[in-house]
Amino acid sequence: MSYKSDIEIAREAQKRPIQEIGAKLGISSNDLVPYGHDKAKISQSFINSVQDRTDGKLILVTAINPTPAGEGKTTTTVGLGDGLNRIGKNAMVCIREASLGPNFGMKGGAAGGGYAQIVPMEDMNLHFTGDFHAITSAHSLLSAMIDNHIYWGNDLEIDTRRVVWRRVVDMNDRALRQITASLGGVANGFPRETGFDITVASEVMAILCLANNLKDLEKRLGDIIVAYRRDKTPVYCRDIEADGAMTVLLKDAMQPNLVQTLENNPAFVHGGPFANIAHGCNSVIATKTALKVADYVVTEAGFGADLGAEKFMNIKCRKAGLAPSVVVLVATVRAMKMNGGVAKADLGTENVEAVMSGCANLGRHIENMKSFGVPVVVAINHFVTDSDAEVQAIKDFVVSQGSEAILSRHWELGSEGSAELATRVAEIADADMGNFAPIYPDDMPLFEKIETIAKRIYRADEVLADQKIRNQLKDWEDQGYGNLPVCMAKTQYSFSTDPTLRGAPVGHSVPVREVRLSAGAGFIVAVCGDIMTMPGLPRNPAAKSICLSDEGEIQGLF
Amino acid sequence: MSYKSDIEIAREAQKRPIQEIGAKLGISSNDLVPYGHDKAKISQSFINSVQDRTDGKLILVTAINPTPAGEGKTTTTVGLGDGLNRIGKNAMVCIREASLGPNFGMKGGAAGGGYAQIVPMEDMNLHFTGDFHAITSAHSLLSAMIDNHIYWGNDLEIDTRRVVWRRVVDMNDRALRQITASLGGVANGFPRETGFDITVASEVMAILCLANNLKDLEKRLGDIIVAYRRDKTPVYCRDIEADGAMTVLLKDAMQPNLVQTLENNPAFVHGGPFANIAHGCNSVIATKTALKVADYVVTEAGFGADLGAEKFMNIKCRKAGLAPSVVVLVATVRAMKMNGGVAKADLGTENVEAVMSGCANLGRHIENMKSFGVPVVVAINHFVTDSDAEVQAIKDFVVSQGSEAILSRHWELGSEGSAELATRVAEIADADMGNFAPIYPDDMPLFEKIETIAKRIYRADEVLADQKIRNQLKDWEDQGYGNLPVCMAKTQYSFSTDPTLRGAPVGHSVPVREVRLSAGAGFIVAVCGDIMTMPGLPRNPAAKSICLSDEGEIQGLF
Repeated sequence: MSYKSDIEIAREAQKRPIQEIGAKLGISSNDLVPYGHDKAKISQSFINSVQDRTDGKLILVTAINPTPAGEGKTTTTVGLGDGLNRIGKNAMVCIREASLGPNFGMKGGAAGGGYAQIVPMEDMNLHFTGDFHAITSAHSLLSAMIDNHIYWGNDLEIDTRRVVWRRVVDMNDRALRQITASLGGVANGFPRETGFDITVASEVMAILCLANNLKDLEKRLGDIIVAYRRDKTPVYCRDIEADGAMTVLLKDAMQPNLVQTLENNPAFVHGGPFANIAHGCNSVIATKTALKVADYVVTEAGFGADLGAEKFMNIKCRKAGLAPSVVVLVATVRAMKMNGGVAKADLGTENVEAVMSGCANLGRHIENMKSFGVPVVVAINHFVTDSDAEVQAIKDFVVSQGSEAILSRHWELGSEGSAELATRVAEIADADMGNFAPIYPDDMPLFEKIETIAKRIYRADEVLADQKIRNQLKDWEDQGYGNLPVCMAKTQYSFSTDPTLRGAPVGHSVPVREVRLSAGAGFIVAVCGDIMTMPGLPRNPAAKSICLSDEGEIQGLF
Repeated sequence: MSYKSDIEIAREAQKRPIQEIGAKLGISSNDLVPYGHDKAKISQSFINSVQDRTDGKLILVTAINPTPAGEGKTTTTVGLGDGLNRIGKNAMVCIREASLGPNFGMKGGAAGGGYAQIVPMEDMNLHFTGDFHAITSAHSLLSAMIDNHIYWGNDLEIDTRRVVWRRVVDMNDRALRQITASLGGVANGFPRETGFDITVASEVMAILCLANNLKDLEKRLGDIIVAYRRDKTPVYCRDIEADGAMTVLLKDAMQPNLVQTLENNPAFVHGGPFANIAHGCNSVIATKTALKVADYVVTEAGFGADLGAEKFMNIKCRKAGLAPSVVVLVATVRAMKMNGGVAKADLGTENVEAVMSGCANLGRHIENMKSFGVPVVVAINHFVTDSDAEVQAIKDFVVSQGSEAILSRHWELGSEGSAELATRVAEIADADMGNFAPIYPDDMPLFEKIETIAKRIYRADEVLADQKIRNQLKDWEDQGYGNLPVCMAKTQYSFSTDPTLRGAPVGHSVPVREVRLSAGAGFIVAVCGDIMTMPGLPRNPAAKSICLSDEGEIQGLF
């Protein structure tokens, strides 16, 4: 039996006009700002008008540590959303937007897969509604205004060696990682070292995704620390007077984007902060608006549950006052096998023992998620090569952990395949079994927050950090930043900081190499490994084979 | 009597849904790709469907050399379009899009002024439909792919000292004019000097504005010369294999944008190449599509007629097979006075003598435009301080030149004020009096083309160029580029290359400092002076006072 590719399925989608999708949520066409016939932004006046409604149930989809086998977290998010609609629930999906640049390196990430996808897939992997371009513009304006301030006399006494605000572009361009700017003489300013990150790594992205509204956005933009003086006092974006104009550039980008699944159910696709140096979730404004218009909101967090779900809970939910009713933890037979030591080439062969051995990784994530006070359901995202015995092995393991696992065939069958999962998830959400709380309080010292995550989530024995880092954290506490949550930047492939340590490692150490303050976004970043904020293109970038066919269809992007 | 500001008038506009505006042109809502409720792109299938129709009449609005007094070329373009509609003609306007970056330096350029404006003004000065962001992305992809090619082994043997493709950003950022990139070690590539231009200076912008369709766009992108080898043979974009992916990034940007005037008449606003190192006109696809759906199409060209109209005729019309039926040359009493030696502060005082003396500049433009075989009407764009005697002086002068001048009050009165101008312009266009031809043939040697423009349009005695430049032009002729037109980059403030020489200077020389080959766009650039392709921000950039009001209205942008 042969299967259609994601793009083939997406192109066969019977999309409905976006006004019809909005109507399902009670949003009139006047409150939809259309971008083409299949995308729309939600007007702020509509968002204002629903603030008194009670919230729907929030469902977080997360996953085991990612492996090259693929887990299908977004696919399951979309499939679960469709499944909930199929069983008669008013449900919607909230996911992140894709970054444009990386699609020209490796073949692009679709939004889901098989029969659980969000469309229009092409647009979502290209310019979409322009949000990321707006973020690039706002970031670039601040960059230009900082150097312009220095050029015209530097009244703020910025130490040009201590400008921490870099530049961004939504392109994989390693040549821009480190540059010397303002060369060429007097008219071009004072030469200094700087560099570019990719747009999703911009603090503006994290801010947009955590801001409650435009006023909050402007305040947070003003709070960004852009540089330090010789005496190490910070210079803020507000001092540069860029916050107002940046807000103007971001006013449309701030509004959630409505699109649809293959089954014509509504989805918000909005925001996309990095999941390492930022919190890796879709926007607060999209999630909160979704909770006002739908009874069930299915969302996801970046990477595995140790990184993505932890930040979702400790950063996004804490800051936005959200509480998930249930966590859906995605696992696959193939990924369990890889965690159990099987090579990628051998995944097609039945190997129940390897599945059982790999389940250690799954077990720890279940335990971790429960420690936030939220009930957990494991979704086994079905692959057509899975054997019944392998699936049963996971189910048995999960039951032994006091939880339950449900096989879901949304990739192959759409909502017909996810109805059972949806039914059980809705029951749990409706039962209000959760008692959500972040795992550390606001007023815990910053270093202890890092230790709490490392020990309780990663199961490390210790956190290693030299005195300079500890002093820096102390300084920030003295400056009033001690109440911020911590955003961990470490490898997504392991609970530890060693990407090759699969399964459920113990006895390891977490070295903190560097700490950064994202004062506008409102978190401290603890960098525990090499974090690349500007990817490069591979030897044969996907761009070389991307083109338009004679019929105007995009080739090579997927 | 006090007058409302442009932004006050624009905000009071009674905009009609863009589908209604499209219907006036016979474009169904299926063929309009909406961007909000007041902007839409025209589908390619609609454009394909009208190719067999006969063309409407093309009317070019140009102006005398700009002065700080302002001439109101766009205002007159919009006013004339509304005037034609008022007298019962099926007419539309085609103008360029605004660049985002510069609006954060100086207060932004509205699209027209007074009661002759295009709306939505805010969007048009910000992200609009994302065209310029798409151009930035396409340009940036090629930049990244060039350095990536070098990084992975440089099979094409690019001489890294001779990479001529720079980077672009749509922001005034002088710190990026000259940089050293790829610093930081092996993983970041081979350090080399490069820099950024503003997006409107990108050859991709010029290409998009000259391409007839997506296939032509892809071909021209492939033709871009990005670098040279040690033996000075060129390396093309096609060799880097970026042309297909760039086309995909530009596929939506290629479609014309439909908006409306204050009087709800249709306007295409599409493309915006620099008017110095590029040709400074709106896109060919927009102009050609407009000619299929309207009986009269009013368009404009950048700067004064010596630069803008000359390039419109010799580059855009030649390449696109267009022929203007009539040229409307915009003059004002105030600008005539400045050309006659009056300081800006004294413009409010009646001074008929200065007007008469300044008319020399107008006279030469009339003569020049006629030399293209096109009839000329002078539009005196009325300012409320103009005296009757001053207006009459211009009219008398123009009659003495064998042409006619009509006072137009569109700024104050909208189409009521421009109906007389519209009536006369339509009569001339209908009379088919024109016999358009570019002023030099394709097969003239390149240096002679430069001389032809300098002598016949600028009235210079000679063109100065050292042997290196002459040899370069010869080389390009040998390589098959000899048939290209020439794009002159000189000051817009004078017929000469000295911006302070107002009026109608004679006996001057035109020094060519540098020549560049835009092989994709299809022209040779002759640089005759300091041309800034990356502006800086002023000491107090407009951005500092741009913000959102509590009501969500943009402040400080206009």
